Amino acid sequence: MPKIRVAVDAMGGDRAPEEVVAGALAAASESVEPVLFGRQEVLAPLAEGLEIVHADDIVAMDEKPSDVAREKRESSMFAACRAVGEGDAQAVVSAGNTGAMLAAGLLEIRRLPDVHRPAIAVPLPSIGGTSVLIDAGANADARPEHLVQFGHMGSVFVEEILAIADPKVALLSIGEEPEKGNRLVRETHPVLEASHLDFVGNVESRELLAHAADVVVCDGFTGNMALKLMEGTVKTLLDEFRKEVEASPRGKLGGLLIRPAARSLRKRLDPDTYGGAYLLGLRGLVVIAHGSSSRTAIANAITLGAQGAAGNVVERVATRLEEEVAAAPG
Amino acid sequence: MPKIRVAVDAMGGDRAPEEVVAGALAAASESVEPVLFGRQEVLAPLAEGLEIVHADDIVAMDEKPSDVAREKRESSMFAACRAVGEGDAQAVVSAGNTGAMLAAGLLEIRRLPDVHRPAIAVPLPSIGGTSVLIDAGANADARPEHLVQFGHMGSVFVEEILAIADPKVALLSIGEEPEKGNRLVRETHPVLEASHLDFVGNVESRELLAHAADVVVCDGFTGNMALKLMEGTVKTLLDEFRKEVEASPRGKLGGLLIRPAARSLRKRLDPDTYGGAYLLGLRGLVVIAHGSSSRTAIANAITLGAQGAAGNVVERVATRLEEEVAAAPG
Repeated sequence: MPKIRVAVDAMGGDRAPEEVVAGALAAASESVEPVLFGRQEVLAPLAEGLEIVHADDIVAMDEKPSDVAREKRESSMFAACRAVGEGDAQAVVSAGNTGAMLAAGLLEIRRLPDVHRPAIAVPLPSIGGTSVLIDAGANADARPEHLVQFGHMGSVFVEEILAIADPKVALLSIGEEPEKGNRLVRETHPVLEASHLDFVGNVESRELLAHAADVVVCDGFTGNMALKLMEGTVKTLLDEFRKEVEASPRGKLGGLLIRPAARSLRKRLDPDTYGGAYLLGLRGLVVIAHGSSSRTAIANAITLGAQGAAGNVVERVATRLEEEVAAAPG
Repeated sequence: MPKIRVAVDAMGGDRAPEEVVAGALAAASESVEPVLFGRQEVLAPLAEGLEIVHADDIVAMDEKPSDVAREKRESSMFAACRAVGEGDAQAVVSAGNTGAMLAAGLLEIRRLPDVHRPAIAVPLPSIGGTSVLIDAGANADARPEHLVQFGHMGSVFVEEILAIADPKVALLSIGEEPEKGNRLVRETHPVLEASHLDFVGNVESRELLAHAADVVVCDGFTGNMALKLMEGTVKTLLDEFRKEVEASPRGKLGGLLIRPAARSLRKRLDPDTYGGAYLLGLRGLVVIAHGSSSRTAIANAITLGAQGAAGNVVERVATRLEEEVAAAPG
């Protein structure tokens, strides 16, 4: 079997290029071949034999996607996406600017024919099993037919990348009853019921950290808000807890004793486990790693991206949405 | 000064009537007079001299608001709200069914003339100061002009009930830039900028637990989702942490040592501190306590409700919205 080539934006992210290249080296294996995109002279001393494709420009973390799309087509990010668009790689990983990466994916890799809107799938750091939240921010406004497609894309994702068979799909709302929710949710509920998905109904946000379902569907505004709120709440809470504990000698001693337990919990909730967010609905697989990704996060992103490519996530999404469109009434 | 009378739905909530009556007794003072609504024969042995107004019916926690509004007008909840509507009490507290309480408030107390939509304000258990989230669930769909009114109502609330002068108002979104967010947020931003509020721009959800602003404005779907997500995440995290700690003898000992620190943190985040949620925009002040409220939570709800009445929250909301409407273009 030929190796799966994963294009890596070696200049993207807060800790690029060192951590990104280190992650690529860690992910390289008999079946996975990371290819680095970026400045030849910077990457050569780090690459230890990995292939380098020179790209002169770099997309900054705070650049506007519209500016980047106009002016930075020769950047490492766009070049890495272009490699996937042209079939030179099967997946792409970047820890760079999320908005710019969305633009790069749309321009260089392009949408699958039956996809209304690409969406961002994020495996949630949850307790009692992994849930995938989709859309976590690609579309701030959405319609019911988009959310149903998100359900299909998310289902293929968890089957192939998280190895969960027969995934259950839920709709994020503010009450379990079908009549609860905003207009989008109330209109989407019956469309999900009528679909071929294994739809289990509405779930409330309070269940998100406790494995509400395998796939949790929502619009990108709601999903992005929920994701940042969970991350922010976990972080603020653990930070404050540490401060409280360290405020007294008794607490400090206790803190030493519970350190293994705290580490174990942090590890279970670590977003790095899944490498980041996955942009689905394009003609190639796109992984958007956290800006602050460590080498472990980058290696996981590359490995899971390659696994998705090996599992034909893109082709399976294309086939499922084609079938849904063909089966749709009217 | 005459005592402020607070109508208390003594039959509402998971722990009614015992905890509710105990909370009312704790809140009774020289300036506050709780009045109990519910079954005379049940309440008389508990009331220790508090005034009881007999009401035969009880609204269950899982009843539909539309059914309740049709069939339960003689319930303790509706009778308590009616007392405010008729001027016999200045505020009402219930730990019952939130949706039914919304209906009871609208029917028995009624909207203020210039209020588009009443909204639920919730003081967030946050670190570094209290933030009030508004709307936390009264209106699943909203328009920009509603959100601006929420900003005014929330500002009056924090001034009078939380004693925060010159409150800063923020808009909940998925990025700080004005062009980020869904359509509602993008359309609301300039209207808030043009208002008389001290608008500080968009805030992201990750800041909610860390005092993003004094008043954080959003539609009721987003607010309810955020509130339940914060509560669920804090609860799941603390529960899991306890399990991890208790899984080893070393951890158990450490757990004993950090107990005071953990209690202090829990106390700072305790939603009972503020008694619950406040329904603003009606002709009387409505406090919706958590269904599981303890006597402390009920006492706090009664005390803060009375404080709001003493601070003329309702009159101040009416005046501010009247001024805004008069000043509005067109």
